[in-house]
Order: sequence, then structure tokens, then C-alpha cells
Amino acid sequence: MHNDSGRRQFLTTLTKAAGVSLLIDTPFMSQASPGHAAPMTVGQVMDLILKKIPDAPFPKTVDTLKSGSASQTVTGIITTMFTTMDVIEKAIAAKANFIIAHEPTFYNHADETDWLKNDAVFQKKQALLDKHNIAVWRFHDYWHAHQPDGIYTGMLSALSWEKYVDKNDPRLLIMPATPLHQIITHAKQKLGIKQVRIVGDRNQSCQRVLLMPGASGGRNQIAAIERTKPDVILCGEVSEWETPEYVRDARQQGAKLSLVVLGHVLSEAAGMEWLVSWLKPQLPGMPISYVPSENPFSYE
Amino acid sequence: MHNDSGRRQFLTTLTKAAGVSLLIDTPFMSQASPGHAAPMTVGQVMDLILKKIPDAPFPKTVDTLKSGSASQTVTGIITTMFTTMDVIEKAIAAKANFIIAHEPTFYNHADETDWLKNDAVFQKKQALLDKHNIAVWRFHDYWHAHQPDGIYTGMLSALSWEKYVDKNDPRLLIMPATPLHQIITHAKQKLGIKQVRIVGDRNQSCQRVLLMPGASGGRNQIAAIERTKPDVILCGEVSEWETPEYVRDARQQGAKLSLVVLGHVLSEAAGMEWLVSWLKPQLPGMPISYVPSENPFSYE
Repeated sequence: MHNDSGRRQFLTTLTKAAGVSLLIDTPFMSQASPGHAAPMTVGQVMDLILKKIPDAPFPKTVDTLKSGSASQTVTGIITTMFTTMDVIEKAIAAKANFIIAHEPTFYNHADETDWLKNDAVFQKKQALLDKHNIAVWRFHDYWHAHQPDGIYTGMLSALSWEKYVDKNDPRLLIMPATPLHQIITHAKQKLGIKQVRIVGDRNQSCQRVLLMPGASGGRNQIAAIERTKPDVILCGEVSEWETPEYVRDARQQGAKLSLVVLGHVLSEAAGMEWLVSWLKPQLPGMPISYVPSENPFSYE
Repeated sequence: MHNDSGRRQFLTTLTKAAGVSLLIDTPFMSQASPGHAAPMTVGQVMDLILKKIPDAPFPKTVDTLKSGSASQTVTGIITTMFTTMDVIEKAIAAKANFIIAHEPTFYNHADETDWLKNDAVFQKKQALLDKHNIAVWRFHDYWHAHQPDGIYTGMLSALSWEKYVDKNDPRLLIMPATPLHQIITHAKQKLGIKQVRIVGDRNQSCQRVLLMPGASGGRNQIAAIERTKPDVILCGEVSEWETPEYVRDARQQGAKLSLVVLGHVLSEAAGMEWLVSWLKPQLPGMPISYVPSENPFSYE
């Protein structure tokens, strides 16, 4: 288990701020006020959410139902980064049958499953979802397309960095000159991260911080570096032959540029936590909770 | 700098074994015996190599010339994982004008450069290559297609694991029951790795070890897990939404399966080192040396 005091603190703050009640890891049906609202189907919840997303529904998106059906009545909603086996078990224990997850369920971006038909891990996961009639909706493209980007908003809040957002480019933060190691310590503490990977100099003084949660891809990361000219880019995940090599070359050319890889899950998780406070006022009486899927890695 | 005593030891062993002379980080023109062999062009060296690769040349491959021309006369060859700025400077210092690199030069798999036309890092790198007339050839698909796979052979040798190769599946190693933490310590020491990421249990006893250097992709990694039923998969790089989540789900279902992510560069580097001993007997008199591009990351 990572040290998640930072996360918990954020959660408490967020809970207070939004005036909602969140209980993690405990069944939350008691929170519901059955009868206060008419029963809603998965499809109705999706429609309600999509009304708040510019240009939704998108003709092409990975944000599809991965299990369950749009016509089933929702007994409770869980938001998370990954629909892991553990998250599914927690949903079942909480009697919640609708999981809204930021990332794929079946180990590939498009959640294609033909190649997994005979795979025991896939079969057991799908059987568990089927047995308990759990609907899983990926909420990735839409949440990023929300104005403002739902993931980014949650991350800024968790990091207490809203005040640094550049007016011309919301991905760029302009902060008082800070040694990189202090920025790293802050991010690790606030996000509950155990370990980051760095290309650069931990003593470098940084004012311009480019924050790119998740795995935006090398071209997007490099284009954003060109555009914003940061001292450091913080991102969730990289392909090692892309941004890390670009930053290494830039540094060997004399540029003052560092890269910090936060890890994918914890670079975006606060955005799926923030989704709860965004959803609650729109679904009065509906039990909604965030269940962390946690960073899967240990380090040695 | 990482502790690379393991690498150096391997290099010494390999050098002795192959009866070749390798000097790293020093100009090596003195090793050459000019006049012993006729001058060769880049294209002639490429042709000579491709004759040893089954079905080469491939109609579609990323293994193209990234700079320089096939018609230039080779003054010396350097093999490496990444053509970093530092590796280019070392090639120039060594008066070697032909770099054979396993990975891309310009931060994307296909080495497309249109999107980088106005990028200062790209411009400076290309200008340095042009100024010194350095040819860069990517040697990825072909080296993996060599029988046996050149990268895999070099890695097996560096790890002293040849004796464990399964007769039915060369990617699978069957070793005496060993706690995972001992396997990790061995790999770190032999390959000069500072830090690995683990999904699993460091105390798990392992006999079946699936070794997949580089970034083979989630589908290939998962398909190999299905095929070989390993206790642990060691790989170079992963996308976090693919193999790590598969292994996490498998473990939460009760399977005895761990994942160790070695890091891309050092999971394949010994294979580019081995290329030197493979090339030397075929190019008598040609100065050929391996220059490590090193793992770019530090950890905090």
C-alpha cells in the first residue's frame, strides 16, 4: 500500500467543499435516500452526463459500455481509474451495479476482446461482471472533453495548484522559482505517489511546469513542450523511445528541461475522484462513491 | 551513473569468448588495421549484414537510414541502443561515421520528422549528424529476425541464463525454484539496472521465467503469458493499461504470476553489445565498438 495521506486529505477537503458525503471501502447504500428520486437506468445516467459534454455523443470514441446494458436500473455508481477485480468486488459488496472507469477494462485501449476469448483471466473477469450484472462504462474521452477537463480539474485541486494556471495555456503552471525536488516531494505527498522517474536535474530551479496527466503520447507531449517552453514536464506515462529521449537530447544540447514521470494511475486518479462531487448534485439520492484502483507497482 | 559492474563483467566475458577487442568510450581508430581490407560503403555493410537475416530485405520495416547515405565510405562503426547526442559526440570523437542503433533517432517509432521540422532539439541533432556526415541505421526488425534473435542472444549471455532456455519455447526459461527477489537482484546486477517496477510478490518462488526484452506490446506479452504459463514475466517496457493490469487481475483472481519491468534500454542493450562480436569477424580491419546510451532515468 502506498502512503495515501495526501489523497485522503484531498478527499476530505473535496468532500467538505462539495458538501457531499463519501465513504470509501464501505457499503454505502445507507447513504442513499431511496424514494427521493425515480429509479434511473444506466442509459439515462449516461445521457444526463453527456448533456454536459460539448459535442457529445462523439461518433468515434472508446467510451462505450464494456459490460451490462443501458436498460438496467442503477443501484449505485462507483467511479475509479481501472475496473480491477478488486474494484468489482468492492462494487458488489456495496450493491452498486454501475462502474464508471477512466481506463480500459480488458487490457487494450479499444477494449477489443476477440483475442482474449480463450484467456482465463478475461473469462473470469467477464464472468464476475456478468454474474453480478455490473455495467462498466469507460469515461475517458468525454471527461477530458468536459469544459474544463474533468481529470485536469481534479488533479489541479489535489495538487492545490489552481492558482498557478497560466491564462494563455491551462496546461502550463507558472509558479515561484522552486527546486525540482520540492515539486516532486509536493506531488508525491499530495497524490500518494511512492516513486517517480526523472530525466533531468532534481536541483533545477523550475517556474514553468507543464502538467500532462495520463499517457498523452510522445507527439502531444513534445508539441506541448515546444508550445509552452517549460522548465519541467510532469506526465503520467511515457513510451521510453519518445519523450524521455527528446528530453535527454535537449539536455545534452544544453537546454534547461526536465521530465518527471508520475505513473499513470495516480497522475489521473484525482480526476475520477472529482467526478463524484460533479455527479452527486445531478443525481440526488443516488449512491455514488469513488473507489481507488491504486498504483499496481512496487519498486526495488 | 548506474552501477554497471555487471555489464562490464559481461563485456569482458564476451570479449574473451569472441576473441575480439572492445574499447569503450575511447577513440578506437588505433584498433583498425587500415589496408587489411578494402574500404566499404554504408550500403555494402548493410548488404553484408542483411545477407545473414532470413527473408531480408523486408518490404516494410523501420530499419531505414535515418541520416547519411548508403554511398559514403565507412570510417568506423558504433553500435548502441539510442543515437543520443552523447553517442553522436562519442562517434565523432572516435572518427566513426556509421552508427547502428536499435531504437529510433527522432522520438517516434517510424522516425517521421515532418512534425519536428520547426523543433529546435530535432534541428540541432540533425545539424550535428549532417555536419559530421554521420550515417545512422536503425537495426531493430532485422536484428530481432536474426536466427537466433540478436537482442535475445545478447541478453541471455549477459544474464548467464542460456542453460535455462526451454527447448519448446526459447522465450521461456526454466530454472530451479528461486525467490523472485533473487531473480531481480541477479538481473539488476548483471544488466546494471538501478531500479525495477514490480506487479507481484517479491517472495514468490519462480521456476518458469518469461523473458521479453524491449516493448513487445500488451497483446504479445499477454499472448506469451497464455502460451508459456510463467511464474514471472520480465520485460523491458509496458503500457500501464495493458500487461500490468492483466497481471494485477490475474493475481486478484488467485493466479501465481508476477511482472517485472526492467526498463527498455537495459533490457535490450546487451543485444547491441553482442552485435559487435557478431560483426567483427565479418568486417576484418573495420573499427567497430559498442557505446552504451545508458538508461536515462533516475528515481526518487
